[in-house]
Amino acid sequence: MLTIWEKIQAAHLTGLIPQTLVAVERESHRIDDHGVLAVTDHPKALGNRATHPYFQTDFAESQLEIITSPNVLAQTVDELQALTASALRGLPQTEALWPLTMPATLPHDVPIAHPTPERLAYREQLVAKTKAVNPQLMSSIHLNLSLPEQLFERLYEAEDFKGTPPSYLDYRNQIYLHLAQQWIKYRFVLTYLFGASPAANADFNSALPKQPVRSLHSSHQFGYHNDEHVHVSYSSVEAYARDLKQAVESGQLISPAQLYAEVRLRSSVPLAQGIHYLEFRDLDLNPFVATGIDAQELQFMQDFAWFLLSQPQMTGDIDEQLATAARMNDKIAMQAPTTSSQEVADAMDQMAIWLNQQTITKPQFAAFTAMQDRVLHPEHTPAAKLVAAGAFETVGQQLARTNKQWATDEPYLLPGFTDMEQSTQMLIEDAMRIGLKVDVLDRSDQFIRLTNGEHQELVRAGNETRLDNLVASRLVDNKFVTKQLLGEAGLPVARAMVYHDLESAQRDFATSFRNKSLVIKPNAANVGEGVSLFMVPPTPEEFETAFQFAHRYGDVLVELFVRGTEYRFFVVANHVHAILERVPANVVGDGQHTVAELVAKKNQDPMRGEAHRKPLQQLHLDERELAVLAEQGLTADSVVPRGHQAFLLTNSNISTGGDSYDMTDEVDESYKKLAIKVAKTMGQTISGVDMIIPNLYQPYQADQAGMATVIEANYNPAMFMHLFPYSGKSRRVTRAVLAALFPEMKDL
Amino acid sequence: MLTIWEKIQAAHLTGLIPQTLVAVERESHRIDDHGVLAVTDHPKALGNRATHPYFQTDFAESQLEIITSPNVLAQTVDELQALTASALRGLPQTEALWPLTMPATLPHDVPIAHPTPERLAYREQLVAKTKAVNPQLMSSIHLNLSLPEQLFERLYEAEDFKGTPPSYLDYRNQIYLHLAQQWIKYRFVLTYLFGASPAANADFNSALPKQPVRSLHSSHQFGYHNDEHVHVSYSSVEAYARDLKQAVESGQLISPAQLYAEVRLRSSVPLAQGIHYLEFRDLDLNPFVATGIDAQELQFMQDFAWFLLSQPQMTGDIDEQLATAARMNDKIAMQAPTTSSQEVADAMDQMAIWLNQQTITKPQFAAFTAMQDRVLHPEHTPAAKLVAAGAFETVGQQLARTNKQWATDEPYLLPGFTDMEQSTQMLIEDAMRIGLKVDVLDRSDQFIRLTNGEHQELVRAGNETRLDNLVASRLVDNKFVTKQLLGEAGLPVARAMVYHDLESAQRDFATSFRNKSLVIKPNAANVGEGVSLFMVPPTPEEFETAFQFAHRYGDVLVELFVRGTEYRFFVVANHVHAILERVPANVVGDGQHTVAELVAKKNQDPMRGEAHRKPLQQLHLDERELAVLAEQGLTADSVVPRGHQAFLLTNSNISTGGDSYDMTDEVDESYKKLAIKVAKTMGQTISGVDMIIPNLYQPYQADQAGMATVIEANYNPAMFMHLFPYSGKSRRVTRAVLAALFPEMKDL
Repeated sequence: MLTIWEKIQAAHLTGLIPQTLVAVERESHRIDDHGVLAVTDHPKALGNRATHPYFQTDFAESQLEIITSPNVLAQTVDELQALTASALRGLPQTEALWPLTMPATLPHDVPIAHPTPERLAYREQLVAKTKAVNPQLMSSIHLNLSLPEQLFERLYEAEDFKGTPPSYLDYRNQIYLHLAQQWIKYRFVLTYLFGASPAANADFNSALPKQPVRSLHSSHQFGYHNDEHVHVSYSSVEAYARDLKQAVESGQLISPAQLYAEVRLRSSVPLAQGIHYLEFRDLDLNPFVATGIDAQELQFMQDFAWFLLSQPQMTGDIDEQLATAARMNDKIAMQAPTTSSQEVADAMDQMAIWLNQQTITKPQFAAFTAMQDRVLHPEHTPAAKLVAAGAFETVGQQLARTNKQWATDEPYLLPGFTDMEQSTQMLIEDAMRIGLKVDVLDRSDQFIRLTNGEHQELVRAGNETRLDNLVASRLVDNKFVTKQLLGEAGLPVARAMVYHDLESAQRDFATSFRNKSLVIKPNAANVGEGVSLFMVPPTPEEFETAFQFAHRYGDVLVELFVRGTEYRFFVVANHVHAILERVPANVVGDGQHTVAELVAKKNQDPMRGEAHRKPLQQLHLDERELAVLAEQGLTADSVVPRGHQAFLLTNSNISTGGDSYDMTDEVDESYKKLAIKVAKTMGQTISGVDMIIPNLYQPYQADQAGMATVIEANYNPAMFMHLFPYSGKSRRVTRAVLAALFPEMKDL
Repeated sequence: MLTIWEKIQAAHLTGLIPQTLVAVERESHRIDDHGVLAVTDHPKALGNRATHPYFQTDFAESQLEIITSPNVLAQTVDELQALTASALRGLPQTEALWPLTMPATLPHDVPIAHPTPERLAYREQLVAKTKAVNPQLMSSIHLNLSLPEQLFERLYEAEDFKGTPPSYLDYRNQIYLHLAQQWIKYRFVLTYLFGASPAANADFNSALPKQPVRSLHSSHQFGYHNDEHVHVSYSSVEAYARDLKQAVESGQLISPAQLYAEVRLRSSVPLAQGIHYLEFRDLDLNPFVATGIDAQELQFMQDFAWFLLSQPQMTGDIDEQLATAARMNDKIAMQAPTTSSQEVADAMDQMAIWLNQQTITKPQFAAFTAMQDRVLHPEHTPAAKLVAAGAFETVGQQLARTNKQWATDEPYLLPGFTDMEQSTQMLIEDAMRIGLKVDVLDRSDQFIRLTNGEHQELVRAGNETRLDNLVASRLVDNKFVTKQLLGEAGLPVARAMVYHDLESAQRDFATSFRNKSLVIKPNAANVGEGVSLFMVPPTPEEFETAFQFAHRYGDVLVELFVRGTEYRFFVVANHVHAILERVPANVVGDGQHTVAELVAKKNQDPMRGEAHRKPLQQLHLDERELAVLAEQGLTADSVVPRGHQAFLLTNSNISTGGDSYDMTDEVDESYKKLAIKVAKTMGQTISGVDMIIPNLYQPYQADQAGMATVIEANYNPAMFMHLFPYSGKSRRVTRAVLAALFPEMKDL
C-alpha cells in the first residue's frame, strides 16, 4: 500500500508544503522585578482579553497567552515576533515575561485568571477537582497545524478507490488521524530537540530529581496529565470522539478543554463535521528567544509533520503502540540533558532521507541542519544550554531581562514587520495590543486589514482609510482650489492667484502683487521644482523669469510670502492629537567645536541613523549643506559661537535631518480650533494641517491679520515624527487613528 | 477735479478691469412648432424654478429666464452658452425659444407664470393694475455689473479728502451713482448698437409704426414703462431710495421690483447698506446668437461701463439732464434701422480715445471694432439685419430653429466648456438643468463644485466625489488584494496568486497552474505593459520568460485566463444604471467591399471623429491593425464575406475605435445583483464593474463555476460611453451621480 506521501508525490502535490497553515499558542507568566510571578491584574494596555484575538490569560492571572492566527509559516513567524514585542512593550515597566516552562518563584497566593466570571468558575472547579495548582502553572507552546485543503481535494480526486469510496470528510479524517498517531509515536524526537525544563523551583514539587533532566514538563511524573482513569483512544476518529464524550459525561473531565493530550483532533465546527486541524501540545518554551520558539524550530515542526505522512499506516493495537511511544517519550524526557539518543538519531536519519528526495528550500535545509546539530551535540539542546547557563532562578531572570530588551530597545521598529513603513509598523503594534485582528494584505503596498468582530477596516500607508473621501484627497493636490475654498470659509490663507499665461499674471503683478514678498510656484501639488521665493519684492523682469520657470510645470501660483514658524497639526476626527514644530537640519554652537565636529557629535545620538530604521536621520555635510552654511558666512571648519544655531539646510523635513519639537501642550487652544476648521473645510477626517504662526501663545483672532496663515492640509499625514520627536513628548497618533476607525472600542 | 478714471490711473488700478463681475439675465418665450407662444407648463426637465439658480420664468409661463451667476466676463460668456444649450436641450422636442424681443404670435390666452402662489398673485395684481398684458411679454437682456471691491478700497485709501472724509459706503455709492447717471445719459449708444425690435406682430399693438424702426422695445411709445406719475430721481442715492419707497407706499408701484427703469441701484443687502451692483436693463435680444447676446457685445458693455467712469461728474439739475437723455434715446430708437447717427459716432470716438490711452487686450479691441463697424455701417446693426432678413414671423421661426440646432446638433459637447473632459461637460449640463449651481474651480483639473442651497459637493473628473473613500480607491490599484477580498466574499474571481520571486511562482506553477490557460501580468494596476496571455497553457520555459517580463514592473500576478464576453456595469449607490458590451475596433463584411473601404465607410459616421470632440473614435489601418488583420488571414485589400466581423484591434477600448453596445435591459437581473455586491465589497459607491459573462440571459448561480468572472471594479469609471454608445439606448449616468450626491432633490 502506498504511503500518503507517495500519493502526494504521484499527484505532483509536494509543492503544497508552504501552504500549510500553522498557528502558535505560547504561554508565559508575567513576573515582577524580583522575579516573582506577578500578582497584578492582566495589564489594561493589552486590551480586553474576553474578545482579544491574540492576548489571553491561561490558568493564572499572570499567565499571558499569545496566540497567532492560522497562517503560512513565514507569516506566523512574523506575527509571533510582532505580538511578542507588542505584548512586552505593553507590560508595566517593572514586569517582564518569565522565559521558562517551569514557573518562577510563586507568590503566597497565585491569582487565578478571571477574564470572565464563567471562565473563572471553570478554573475554580478545576482546582477543586485536581486539588493541585502548581502543575497548571507550567507554560508551554502549542502548535495548531492545518494541511492545505487543496491537498485533500486533489488527493481525493486522484484516489482509485476500491469498492464504495469513503466520504470526503472521512478521507480527510483518516489522513489527520494518521498524522496524530505518528506525532504521538515520534513525540520523543521533539522532546529531545525542544525539551527545556531541566529543573524547577524547589517549591514547585517536593519530589524533584536531584540531577537536571531534559524536560520535567514532558515527563510522566512531573508533567501535567489527566487522571489516570481518563483514556481517550486514537485508534479511530470515532473512538476518540466517543471516549472524549464519555469522559465528560462521566464527570472525569469538566469539558473537552480539559483533555491534556499531546495531540487534539480539532474542528472549527463540531468534530462530527470533520477534523480541520491538529493541535500539537505541550512543547517546552525555548527561553533563549523572546518568542519562546524560533523560526527554525517552527520550520522543522512543519516539515516534521509532512515527514510523518511518509510513515506507513499503523496497524494492530494502535493504542498499545501509542502507550509504548509514551514510555519512550518519558525516557527521553527524564534523561540527563547531555545524553545522546540513538532512537532520535535514527528518526532524524529517516527524515534526512525523506528531505533528500525533494527540492527543499534554504529555510527548510537550515532548520533541519540546526536540529541535526542538537542530535549530534546534545550539549546544544536547550535543556543542556540552560543547565550550563547557571541556576534556575538567575538564568530565568536574566533571560527575562534580555527578552524584554529585545522588544524595547528599538521601540520605533516592530519585529517581523521591519520592512514596512514605520508608521504602519507602529499602527500594527497598537492594533495588535488593543485586540484588533491584523491581516497584512500587501506588505510592499502597506495594505492592512483590521478586524474587530464583524467590523472590518482597510488601512493603507498608515492612515489612508474609509474615513477620508476621494475628492477631498484630490482637493489637496490642487493648491489653488484649496486656497479658494479655505478663503471662502474665512480661513487665513496667503493671498494668491493662479495663472495660465504670463500676460494675465503680469497685469495682476502691476496691481495686486506690487512691492510684496512673493512665492511663485507650480499650482499642481507634489512638484518640488519650479519654485522661486522673493523675500525682497521682485522686479517685473525677475517676476517674468520666475513665472516662466514655474510655468514649465503647468499653471502658476503667485502667492504672498508669509514669514514665521511653521507648525504641523495632526488632526483626527475633529481633534488635534499632536503639534510639531519642525526645524531644518542644524547644529548649535558651543564656542569650541567646529561645525563638522558638531555634526559628528549630533550624529552619535542613537535615535539618528538610516532612513526607515531610525526615527531621526543622520546629518550630512555635502555640497548642499556647505552652500547653506556659506550663506550664513560659515564653513565646515567654523567654530560656532555658544548657543548660536547654524543651519545645514533650509527645508524642515525630518527625512533630511530636521529636528522636531513636540509643542502639543504649548500651542494656544484657539489654533487647535483653527486647524480643526481647516480639516473640516477640506472635508478631511485625518489631516496634517500646516500653519505659520508668529506667536503660538497669543490667542488667534480672525479679524487681526497675520496671526496665522494656513499653508496646506495634507491627507495621509506622516505619523512617525509625532511618535518619536527629536524633543518633547511622544504622541501616539496611531492610536487616534484606531480610535476613529473603531469607535466601539471604548478604552482606546 | 479729477475724473474717477484719472484717479484709477493714478493709483495704478487700470489692471482691475478684468475683475469686474457681470451677470446676465436673458428672457425669451418658448414657442410651439407653429411658432405660437407655448401654452404648456414650464418644462419639468428644467428643474424646480422656485429654487433654480439659473432657470426662472418671467411674466408669462412660456417666458423662460436664464440667469448667470456673477462672474468675470469670460466665465459669464461660457456659463451663458452652457445654460442656453442646457435649457434648449431640456425643452420638449416640439418647442424652441423665440429669439426676438417682440413676442411671437400669441395664443388665445397667455398663461401667466406660476412658479409659486405668491409670485402668481403678484403678477395677477400687476395685470389688474396696468390693465395690459402685451407689454409684459417683451423679452430682453439685463446685465448686472459689479466693479471690483479692491477698486473702491484702494481708491478710498488713495483719496486725499478735504474736510470730513465720507464713509466708505458713501464713497462707493457715489461712484456707482455716477455710473448709473452716465449709463442713462449714454443709453442711446446701446440702443443704436443693440436695438433689434424693428417690428412686431400686428396683434401686439394697434398703433405700430408702418415702417421698421430700430427698437420698438426701447422707444417711449412702445416700450414698457411705469405709470407717468412714478418719478424716481437719480440725483442722489438718498433721493432714489426715498422716491422708490414713496412710490411703493403710495401704491404707485406694487414693489420695488416693478420699477421699470434703465438702471437700478442694487444691493445684496438693504440699499441703506450700500450699492453692490448696478442692473442695466432692457436691452434687445440679439436674435442671431442662441444666447441672445454674444461675447463681443458683453465685452463692449463692460468696457463701456469703465469708459463712463472717465466722464466728468454731472452737476446742475441732473434729473432734467437725464430726461433730455431719455428723449435722445427715444429718437434713436424710433429711427429707421439703416439711419446713421452723429451723436453715436461722437460717443464712440470718445471711447476710442479712452481705449487708446491703455494697453488693451485682443478681445477688448475686437469687441470695440465690431461695435464701431455697426456705427460706420448702420446696415450691420441687428435691427437692420433683421429687417433685411424678411418678415417678422418667418425670420423669428427660422432663427428659433437655427438656435435650437446650435444646441442640439452636437449633444455630446457643452458650449462654453468644450475644453473640459466630455463626462464633466455632461455632468455640468445636467447639473445646470436640474438647478444645481455649478462653480468650475479648475477647468484643466476637471474640478467643479455643485451647490443646492446649503448643500455643497465637490466633484472631480466627472465622478470622484465624497461618496467614495480613499482606501477603496487604493484597493483598486492593487489587483491581488482586490482578488483576495472579492474571493473571501464569495464572489467569482479568476484564481490567481501574486509572487515576489520566480522560485515561489515556479513551485506553484507545478502544482496550481499546470496545464491551464494563463494571464501573467504586473500586480500594480494601470501598468499596461508586461502582460502575457497564454490561451494554450505555457511550458515551464514560457512561464519563466513571461514571469521575468512582468517582473520588471514589480510583483507578478499569475491568473487563470477566462474566456467570454466582457461587460461593464456602471453602479451608483447599489443600483446598476448601465451595462455596456465593448467590442474591439472592427468592420463587418458585405461580400463586396475591401477592409479599407469598410473602414472608410464606418469612419463616415458623424459620431466618429477626433478624441474629446466626438463620442466615438475614428478607425485606423496602421501597422497594429494590419498585424491583427494578418492573424485573421486578412489584408487591407481583402473582401470580407457578408456578415463576417473582421477585427482591427484586440483591445475593446472605445478610445481606440471600439464599438459599444448598451445591454442594460438585456442582462439578467442576477448579474446586476452580482455587480452591486462587487461594488459593495470593494467599498465603492460609484463603480465600474467589469465581468466576463458567457451567457447574459442565464441567471447567475454562485455554485456553478464559470457563470461569471469578476475582472475588476474601477473607481472613477468612464461615463461618456454610456451616454453615447455606438448602439442602443443612451444612459444618462451623469444624472445618477447627481441623484446620489443630492438625494434631497427628489425629482432627479
